[in-house]
Amino acid sequence: MADLTSSLAAFAAGPISTTSQARIVTSLSALDWLAVGRAGADEPVSRIIRDMVLAEGGAAQAKLFGGGAAPLRAAALVNGTISHALDYDDTHFAHIGHPSVAVFPAALAIAEFEDKPIVDLLEAALIGMELSIRIGLWLGRGHYQAGFHQTATAGAFGAAVAVGRVMGFDADQMQAVLGLVATRAAGQKAQFGTMGKPYNAGQAAANGIEAAMLIRSGFEPNAGAIEGPHGFGATHLGADDTATALAGLGDEWLFESVSHKFHACCHGLHAALEAARDLDIAEPEVAEIRIKTHPRWMSVCNQLSPTTGLGAKFSYRTVIAMQALGYDTALPDSYSDDVCTDPRLRSLRDRITVEADDSLSETQANLSLLRRDGARREATHDLLTPMSLSDREDRVRQKAAKLIGGDEADAIWSMLRTGGRAAELSDRLGG
Amino acid sequence: MADLTSSLAAFAAGPISTTSQARIVTSLSALDWLAVGRAGADEPVSRIIRDMVLAEGGAAQAKLFGGGAAPLRAAALVNGTISHALDYDDTHFAHIGHPSVAVFPAALAIAEFEDKPIVDLLEAALIGMELSIRIGLWLGRGHYQAGFHQTATAGAFGAAVAVGRVMGFDADQMQAVLGLVATRAAGQKAQFGTMGKPYNAGQAAANGIEAAMLIRSGFEPNAGAIEGPHGFGATHLGADDTATALAGLGDEWLFESVSHKFHACCHGLHAALEAARDLDIAEPEVAEIRIKTHPRWMSVCNQLSPTTGLGAKFSYRTVIAMQALGYDTALPDSYSDDVCTDPRLRSLRDRITVEADDSLSETQANLSLLRRDGARREATHDLLTPMSLSDREDRVRQKAAKLIGGDEADAIWSMLRTGGRAAELSDRLGG
Repeated sequence: MADLTSSLAAFAAGPISTTSQARIVTSLSALDWLAVGRAGADEPVSRIIRDMVLAEGGAAQAKLFGGGAAPLRAAALVNGTISHALDYDDTHFAHIGHPSVAVFPAALAIAEFEDKPIVDLLEAALIGMELSIRIGLWLGRGHYQAGFHQTATAGAFGAAVAVGRVMGFDADQMQAVLGLVATRAAGQKAQFGTMGKPYNAGQAAANGIEAAMLIRSGFEPNAGAIEGPHGFGATHLGADDTATALAGLGDEWLFESVSHKFHACCHGLHAALEAARDLDIAEPEVAEIRIKTHPRWMSVCNQLSPTTGLGAKFSYRTVIAMQALGYDTALPDSYSDDVCTDPRLRSLRDRITVEADDSLSETQANLSLLRRDGARREATHDLLTPMSLSDREDRVRQKAAKLIGGDEADAIWSMLRTGGRAAELSDRLGG
Repeated sequence: MADLTSSLAAFAAGPISTTSQARIVTSLSALDWLAVGRAGADEPVSRIIRDMVLAEGGAAQAKLFGGGAAPLRAAALVNGTISHALDYDDTHFAHIGHPSVAVFPAALAIAEFEDKPIVDLLEAALIGMELSIRIGLWLGRGHYQAGFHQTATAGAFGAAVAVGRVMGFDADQMQAVLGLVATRAAGQKAQFGTMGKPYNAGQAAANGIEAAMLIRSGFEPNAGAIEGPHGFGATHLGADDTATALAGLGDEWLFESVSHKFHACCHGLHAALEAARDLDIAEPEVAEIRIKTHPRWMSVCNQLSPTTGLGAKFSYRTVIAMQALGYDTALPDSYSDDVCTDPRLRSLRDRITVEADDSLSETQANLSLLRRDGARREATHDLLTPMSLSDREDRVRQKAAKLIGGDEADAIWSMLRTGGRAAELSDRLGG
């Protein structure tokens, strides 16, 4: 059996062969990350973290969402937190985590500071995100179920490696940085629903860049601190599944199957929203809608008649009614207290029912529409169904355009696809 | 059963009644921490961490061991790491951790920045260290045995609360800061024997001060993230022993029984060195020395004939021979490669044997001396045997005098006992 850390380190430091799909999806995630971060820059948690760092001052090494610049470690903390503030960034279901928010803030900061080309940044980020997914698989679902926030724990490893790649680490340095970040990686699911959730993403990014900076300066850690009886896996309730973690490493990019969010609400609602989109429901025709979903979501996002924008983000009946009424579910601002009092919405909501169906997976939902004319139409959507690359590009770019404007989204996309310097990309963080 | 977090928060925010002994021991730990930190300021790990932070620049909010100043979070990281670099700081056996190195760096930084009196700093540090010991007891021995470095995990909670006390937190804020730091607290025992061990202390201090700064700025975490099914205890293999953790809280100061190190080597050797000290062994009289120790130490610090200074720090035969030959085991520099080649030492070492004795506890050692005149003398020492307060003061002050000079040690002791500002104390960090 190959050794986990040394295999991952050799992968991260070695020559790699990327697929066109992996490169495009990485660029889409970069655009998505940047757009979502800008949209979240004024959230309360964003302001608190940015203000803390700006009050510290220091060298303007890397730019921040919302404006200003800070030293590398501080910039990673700020940008990681801000880009997860809306919980609207990408998700990988294989290890249940948000790869971009831990890795891009760290990789972009160092790439900006060292004036690297965007193509190097994207390659480093892809490697880092691939590695965080594979560390996540190695830790396994039990790690997450027990209470660890995989975005933060596995994410710190990915961030460390991405920064190491930008710095040109060899395999020994990669092994060292993985060993060191193992003593720093942390983050609890107990913070879900609070400011602590985005903060976990920020700490993952900051932990990763700090570990890489120290290794480059000659810090000598235990490079074997992930596996073994006192390693990170053992202490953090990991499954230690090395075969799954390493399967296809270097040939297959698990990152390609990352999901982008196209609705600014709880991920548990997305399959139902996509099914409604497939049916192209418009309010006047609706006599009744019946939603079926995996039982787990019933306690997560089935608020029946919420009265606040936050509540709306966790309510099947509300978001499906919003979509049928033409509210744009891709825009965070659509989920308002006002929308909950819209009489048309309240009337439509009363015609929608939600039930658990354990024949559906967590990524599936079924929608049955009874029209006023008596016709019945039905659709089932599975978020894991691969989207064509061109569809995905269209939708990510549409989302970005809604969040930061079409011209800006196009300009950033062009920069990502045609090259330029990482510093030009960071110039866009400030909005 | 009282709730752990709310009880600790009420204790940390409320009026407290300290004993004279607790106050004196806190002052001794402050002196000891400061002297040990200064002695460790040029260690390789110390230079690496300080250089990283100084390159970031920023507001000179708090001074650093070795000179210079940095923003609060950075200063805590640097001073925590440096003060644990020699592993010569205080230890609390009830929870197996080093309380001072996590708490003082954080508490002193904020007290200096806010120009608080030393008396406030010492009270806050005492509360923080007491809390870290009690969180450590709540987590239990299994947490440590599994691989968590209690100095770093429990220490982060203590640091957060100490900073909160300096900031004047109420009980709600204390509860919030405990909840927030639970998502940040980390540190693996797998780093023992590497630069990662002192770094763990630094991260505890930095995590604590960061959490407190965020809570003061209005950050809203899950304040109940320590207990419960997804809390820090559950995820970190805690024993959840609330009764032990809270026993006597507010009336009894567990911190009073902290141990100070009087020999600059592995703690497993100290009971034997103290027994040798009781016997007042001098080399010419030694025909044979037999050392008995707890079996656990045989694999930790029983190198038979080390050839390096580092090896000497983990060798019963070497350190006992050093002491009998008049080398000062309190001085880090005494443990050199040269001492290992001293012919007198090599000769004496051959007359020393070490054996495991499971009738002894981990804090006990027995020494049997056979003199050349045929007389046999024997001593058993237990590190848990309380030392009189005046003996303890004498020995801590002697140790500090050896490390930083007698005048400096006296001046700092006088400052600690008679008042003054925290900023005057930090002026001494630079040496």
